[in-house]
Amino acid sequence: MSDALVIGLDIGGTSTRAVLASLAGDRTGTGTAGGGNPTSHGAEAAAAELAKALGAALGSTDPGRVRAGTIGLAGVARLMADPASRAAFDRAWAEVGLTCPYELIGDPLVAYASGTASPDGTVLIAGTGAVAATVRGFALDRVSDGHGWLLGDAGSGFWLGREAVRATLATMDAGRPLGRLSRAVVRTLLPAEAPSAAGPAAGGRADLGALSARDRVDDLVQRVTRRPPVELAGLAPLVIAAHAEGDRTATALLAEAGRLLTESVARIREPGDTTPVVLAGGLLVGDTPLATAVERELRSRWPDATRRRASDGAAAAAWLAARPLLTPTDASALHTRLVPQSANNPLK
Amino acid sequence: MSDALVIGLDIGGTSTRAVLASLAGDRTGTGTAGGGNPTSHGAEAAAAELAKALGAALGSTDPGRVRAGTIGLAGVARLMADPASRAAFDRAWAEVGLTCPYELIGDPLVAYASGTASPDGTVLIAGTGAVAATVRGFALDRVSDGHGWLLGDAGSGFWLGREAVRATLATMDAGRPLGRLSRAVVRTLLPAEAPSAAGPAAGGRADLGALSARDRVDDLVQRVTRRPPVELAGLAPLVIAAHAEGDRTATALLAEAGRLLTESVARIREPGDTTPVVLAGGLLVGDTPLATAVERELRSRWPDATRRRASDGAAAAAWLAARPLLTPTDASALHTRLVPQSANNPLK
Repeated sequence: MSDALVIGLDIGGTSTRAVLASLAGDRTGTGTAGGGNPTSHGAEAAAAELAKALGAALGSTDPGRVRAGTIGLAGVARLMADPASRAAFDRAWAEVGLTCPYELIGDPLVAYASGTASPDGTVLIAGTGAVAATVRGFALDRVSDGHGWLLGDAGSGFWLGREAVRATLATMDAGRPLGRLSRAVVRTLLPAEAPSAAGPAAGGRADLGALSARDRVDDLVQRVTRRPPVELAGLAPLVIAAHAEGDRTATALLAEAGRLLTESVARIREPGDTTPVVLAGGLLVGDTPLATAVERELRSRWPDATRRRASDGAAAAAWLAARPLLTPTDASALHTRLVPQSANNPLK
Repeated sequence: MSDALVIGLDIGGTSTRAVLASLAGDRTGTGTAGGGNPTSHGAEAAAAELAKALGAALGSTDPGRVRAGTIGLAGVARLMADPASRAAFDRAWAEVGLTCPYELIGDPLVAYASGTASPDGTVLIAGTGAVAATVRGFALDRVSDGHGWLLGDAGSGFWLGREAVRATLATMDAGRPLGRLSRAVVRTLLPAEAPSAAGPAAGGRADLGALSARDRVDDLVQRVTRRPPVELAGLAPLVIAAHAEGDRTATALLAEAGRLLTESVARIREPGDTTPVVLAGGLLVGDTPLATAVERELRSRWPDATRRRASDGAAAAAWLAARPLLTPTDASALHTRLVPQSANNPLK
């Protein structure tokens, strides 16, 4: 086993990353390629990116040394139900000379394993969307939310962006002065306008003011509704920026998002659970105010649970491939060596 | 003036209604035609329905006797900004022999005037969408919400339907037994399934149960997201029915919708305002539980205001056409004769 290798892949919407590693924890290769999700990119294009990332990670390494592989990606159930996508992935795997089996797993499990080596725990992901899942023996157990922007994703980037616009519209309807967040929303959505800090009701006769305020409200609504709804997630950074500048609406929205995300967790995680919680997704990795809000909520509900941040998904996928080949103690040691832990850990 | 007539039209998405009346309050003709909104049906098709309704209301009456006309419809600002639609309406008006001027007004004002002869007040409309407006001297003053399903319509039929699905998904995620409302939602959206009262977690091993529950959750989400979002409003009757059967989730949703609708009103109506509030739209006319919830909220905020239900929009439009031709006393008397008041009035 001493020269045995494992390979892990993290396939996302905009990039595919591969890590080749020894069972001792040495990274012997890495590779990157473009987005490779078959659902959004098509089976052949996705398989081509997969082969590219695999080839780069392997380099001149003998592919026969690779004993196991794990590929993590979103929408894995759909992929597994689609023979054409499966066949395209199989061809890409063989094309680079790999002969070992590989396992397809969902991205929540990869995110989870990138934060902890514990077989049981919970992962909470908030980016454009939001989903929570419990993990048992490194398999997904129960899932909460992830229902998409129309019916769910409570506390996600989409939710923050939509609520920022809703708060702005409510303030405009009421004819109250716009705060920092609302001014940023108007500036972003209606760049031709130059809203004053005094708000739309300032200046002019009351009835004229009301009419022009309504026109601006309609412009704002039209601007948003003409674009794909999910683009509202692009406004989430405005909420974070306004919060940093002391805007109370932004701070309240982040606190509410933290509560909603924690509620999603509470639907599937028992009250006394002491297993770790891994925070993942663009809005929760790193030192973000939403992560702070979520941690506050998690700490109050599960005071005895460790909270960790997700880190390198491709390395975690490689570790998941290696895990069945090792004793629990060796697997744990490999995790420490192979999967870099976030500077924001430990959070307990 | 004794033989003078007025004509009013209420143009909706599915029907166009016309009322021809004398200044004494006699209905001398009525007409109906198909939906005639230029925005949704096109200018020429809308004008043809307008001409049809006008012609039916006039019958053999000399159109020269008609002194004034009012046309109420949704999206009036867009219509007035579109010369082609205006010209098509002008042609329809002339085609039936009418020579008097006509006024185009928004449907909130027509709904308002169908409930009260008071020149100042508030109208709250909840159907598929939701909007509130204050009225001053029979002109729209301020408007709140009406921002559409993505950004607003808080407390509307869309909102009730979406929240019914969200509550169902949350219950399924948590693996709790489905209540009446959630069972009705599943039955409606997944008619092939036969959900048991015990819920998805009942029977089978826990992990298998969880997996199949997640598949059902995904099916439900897919079913909704493949259709136009506004169709969620079609689930609002399930909330009303489940409330009637004692479902607590449904009752809570209706109470919350009532609060949200009243909040929309509070953004534009002063706390001490004693002018009437007219309730309009499919979810608030008639003896509906949402109307009851809204009335409770309105009564607690504006205890001295009369609450009225909207009634016949075409008759109200005819009355609005007649009003400038009469003394205030005569106008008030005409309203009493011409515009039938809902059996659910007075609500004070």
